[in-house]
Amino acid sequence: MSFYIGLLHYPVYNKRGEIIVSAITNLDLHDLARLAKTYKASRLYVINPLIDQQDLAKRICRHWVSGYGAKYNKDRQKAMSLISVVPTLEASMAEIKDIEGETPILVATDAGKAKKQKVNYKLAREIIASNRVVMILFGTAWGIAKELIRKADYLLEPIFGVSNYNHLSVRTAAAITLDRLFSQSARS
Amino acid sequence: MSFYIGLLHYPVYNKRGEIIVSAITNLDLHDLARLAKTYKASRLYVINPLIDQQDLAKRICRHWVSGYGAKYNKDRQKAMSLISVVPTLEASMAEIKDIEGETPILVATDAGKAKKQKVNYKLAREIIASNRVVMILFGTAWGIAKELIRKADYLLEPIFGVSNYNHLSVRTAAAITLDRLFSQSARS
Repeated sequence: MSFYIGLLHYPVYNKRGEIIVSAITNLDLHDLARLAKTYKASRLYVINPLIDQQDLAKRICRHWVSGYGAKYNKDRQKAMSLISVVPTLEASMAEIKDIEGETPILVATDAGKAKKQKVNYKLAREIIASNRVVMILFGTAWGIAKELIRKADYLLEPIFGVSNYNHLSVRTAAAITLDRLFSQSARS
Repeated sequence: MSFYIGLLHYPVYNKRGEIIVSAITNLDLHDLARLAKTYKASRLYVINPLIDQQDLAKRICRHWVSGYGAKYNKDRQKAMSLISVVPTLEASMAEIKDIEGETPILVATDAGKAKKQKVNYKLAREIIASNRVVMILFGTAWGIAKELIRKADYLLEPIFGVSNYNHLSVRTAAAITLDRLFSQSARS
């Protein structure tokens, strides 16, 4: 079983429900790369169509993978070296197909606005256990555009903790999702 | 059952294993407050002995609780209003005792260096289910000082995902810990 993580900056919504390109957030790259390493994702795709934003993300990665950061913190180097910066989701899916020899199953995540039928975590774990290659997509800003969610193979159910408040950051939502999907010992 | 979260900035370790006061990180406050709201924590204590750091944390909170941020994002207001800024762990424990009429059980978290006997998540959930008041303490920087961990009632086992890499941010580690401890549906 191999899986990939996508961090999507376009197409996503802003607060007013308009489609935007969101900005690269430094801590998103660090937190998601460290999660990717913890849960053995094959790669983390940082998806942003803007050249200057790609350059920013690449510069951050270079610092930690081959620059001063690599000497400063070897653990961080291992995590950040999992990042690939790509312009589109399609580019990441094509790269995964090249690597794996099959098109990955696209699993989108959403905090609850999307109307598409959702799969629960139990079913999602069964899909993963079926040995297919999976791409799990997390949206930044106010979430993944519904046109893209419609094209996904599956939409994962939103995270509800104890309350009906579900306004988590993409960093913490990704942490919970990956732990629920992949951790063997989460409930033991 | 009521529980509290502590985000500790002193005493914690730096990279060289020296005891330091760590700096307030804006996104830590946001991410942990949103988690506190999601999992129904009674309060989030931001613990830092430095007056200027307390002032910074309070200014961030004011912006979101009663300033422009409160109008801009009501969901964020609800989360950020759970934050109390205090100088010491003892101050937070005393405040909880005042509110609850009992001293909370102190559950510390650590990525694995501490030698103290650890409790697994199953046992930790049983402790929580026993209806005692609980304070769950997360360390910033390179983790909670061992002198303080020794004084805790329990030390929670480190988070291991799939690999033996366990270098998560406090934001994502807190997300996983709270979901494992409190979510009803994490495995359904």
